[in-house]
Amino acid sequence: MSKTVLMLPGDGIGPEIVAEAEKVLHKVNEKFNLGLTFEQALVGGAAIDATGIPLPDETLDKARQADAILLGAVGGPKWDQLEMARRPEKGLLGLRSNLQLFANLRPAILYPQLASASSLKPEVVSGLDIMIVRELTGGIYFGQPRGVRELEGGERQGYNTYVYSESEIRRIGRVAFEAARQRNKKLCSVDKANVLEVTVLWREVMTELAKEYPDVELSHMYVDNAAMQLVRAPKQFDVIVTGNMFGDILSDEAAMLTGSIGMLPSASLNAEKQGMYEPCHGSAPDIAGQGIANPLATILSAAMMLRYSLGEEKAAEAIEAAVSTVLDQGLRTADIMSEGARKVSTLEMGEAVLAAL
Amino acid sequence: MSKTVLMLPGDGIGPEIVAEAEKVLHKVNEKFNLGLTFEQALVGGAAIDATGIPLPDETLDKARQADAILLGAVGGPKWDQLEMARRPEKGLLGLRSNLQLFANLRPAILYPQLASASSLKPEVVSGLDIMIVRELTGGIYFGQPRGVRELEGGERQGYNTYVYSESEIRRIGRVAFEAARQRNKKLCSVDKANVLEVTVLWREVMTELAKEYPDVELSHMYVDNAAMQLVRAPKQFDVIVTGNMFGDILSDEAAMLTGSIGMLPSASLNAEKQGMYEPCHGSAPDIAGQGIANPLATILSAAMMLRYSLGEEKAAEAIEAAVSTVLDQGLRTADIMSEGARKVSTLEMGEAVLAAL
Ligand SMILES: CC(C)[C@H](C(=O)O)[C@@H](O)C(=O)O
Ligand SMILES: CC(C)[C@H](C(=O)O)[C@@H](O)C(=O)O
Repeated sequence: MSKTVLMLPGDGIGPEIVAEAEKVLHKVNEKFNLGLTFEQALVGGAAIDATGIPLPDETLDKARQADAILLGAVGGPKWDQLEMARRPEKGLLGLRSNLQLFANLRPAILYPQLASASSLKPEVVSGLDIMIVRELTGGIYFGQPRGVRELEGGERQGYNTYVYSESEIRRIGRVAFEAARQRNKKLCSVDKANVLEVTVLWREVMTELAKEYPDVELSHMYVDNAAMQLVRAPKQFDVIVTGNMFGDILSDEAAMLTGSIGMLPSASLNAEKQGMYEPCHGSAPDIAGQGIANPLATILSAAMMLRYSLGEEKAAEAIEAAVSTVLDQGLRTADIMSEGARKVSTLEMGEAVLAAL
Repeated sequence: MSKTVLMLPGDGIGPEIVAEAEKVLHKVNEKFNLGLTFEQALVGGAAIDATGIPLPDETLDKARQADAILLGAVGGPKWDQLEMARRPEKGLLGLRSNLQLFANLRPAILYPQLASASSLKPEVVSGLDIMIVRELTGGIYFGQPRGVRELEGGERQGYNTYVYSESEIRRIGRVAFEAARQRNKKLCSVDKANVLEVTVLWREVMTELAKEYPDVELSHMYVDNAAMQLVRAPKQFDVIVTGNMFGDILSDEAAMLTGSIGMLPSASLNAEKQGMYEPCHGSAPDIAGQGIANPLATILSAAMMLRYSLGEEKAAEAIEAAVSTVLDQGLRTADIMSEGARKVSTLEMGEAVLAAL
């Protein structure tokens, strides 16, 4: 039974890095006889330019039918002046919410070969391996009401709503407890329960859930403290679970601790383990079209996709091993370049991974 | 004309560190003939224990009448089980909002004597000097409606409201532009304008305001990127301005970049420059009562108070010079201890500053 992978290159460096990941997928498809078929569609700014909207029906239909999705990145200054509803980001948010991809897994791993890329002292980050589990289809990202209204007297006021129900908290909690169970059995739930009522409920539900996972040690931390602790002593964390907005901030902070955000993949899963996979980094419009972007985060996202949504562990491991090989060979794109290494282009990096496969 | 300073020791290490700052204030009061008088009152957990509520009327009255307030810290596990409205934090939030202390100034400065305390590489943080301007009386901290409600079917849902009006944004914007003007003339406004409508308005108002400050270079950054950039290259920032929640997170992250959060003061000002001053760090219940907390952030908060609310620049500078002297002497409390330095208690550190005055 053939499985379908939908490729969504998106904007900025998206098309360049997805092209390399696609080659890698074709190669393992052949080598491991996976029987994958590939589709492609438009999302974000690319879709706006072609159709006027960031998430065309055709794209959404293809996404629903696909077994897994590989996304590059969306957004860029070209579309920054558009009103909220027509921005590239709405394409991404629309996919997340329509497919109910509520569980966003963002590993922050320091590759030993790239230890020197971090802005932190080696002893603080060496061996770093954190998994951030971010709720992705709720919270203030989707909360209603939202908008800008006029107050008496004509002054404008902007407003958004931060909202979570017990069941939303419980389902992301379960994903996080399960992930911790597979790892070092430590889960830190991040909230602002000393100020925000919605996160008081969050803390309560997490505490209740903990009874079902007696083998996992649950702790709670305020978000300001978590932002601090990630800088001070990131290795104290195993799995972190938090809401959409705090997860956006903390996962980017954690990714940057490694100094090599161009290496970090992510997965967004729904209850059926259908998933969208994308690099942690953005569309980097400043270097788009120059052929210098790092394709490895996207290639590693393809590996995550094979593992979590397609059940092809062997192919996933082969890709990860190939990436490790090219790093050992001293190949580096500009973002992770260091003295003594060989600087390569996006294309050369992709070819090197193919060769190592 | 005598000016009044209200001391609010609060909880945890609060009483210990405020005691040292008070001695320092008494000393400069005498030395510079400032004519200050001192009052004391209860807030936070200490007030709950004595009166049942975190912000007694008597405290609020004294706060209104004072020319400036020096606060230690509030909160601790002892009061964590109380419902939201009766928690120690409500004492702090109540003071901020009743006195309309909307402008929170949080410097993140790396003291050259303490450079090795940072978890970041020396070249990344040496000379670091950022000012974070956080809006403190609005946003999601105070937005209505808020609470926990029951949905159809009996499930609970928590909700909070993130809200800003143009005038609230404008007044904090002015403070930030003025601060940038006094410094390196670079202001970075942090928002999430690609997702949150309230921050689209934020960005608009900041952009409008920029016309009045042509000498200041305004940039905009998404909060996730800001959390990342603070880790990657913090020295790119001069002044950062942002809302209450993002400011809470980013100011703690920025403070921790220095590795010596026990050194960082903060000021919360209203339109009349009346202000509340407090260390950036919390009440540290784990080390309370042991006499080992670092009093320098509170002593430096007293210096900020002399400068911003009491107009006593000379006395402020004298305190700052004394702090620098004790660091040069190699005196360190446990939190900033390093090899070769002399470890001192809270009391010894306070006495050393007095001696240096
Ligand atoms: C592009 C943007 C809408 C998105 C988000 O905020 O979720 C991005 O920052 C991310 O983290 O995937
Ligand atoms: C104690 C808490 C309510 C407070 C806040 O979140 O504002 C603290 O974290 C701070 O930053 O001053």
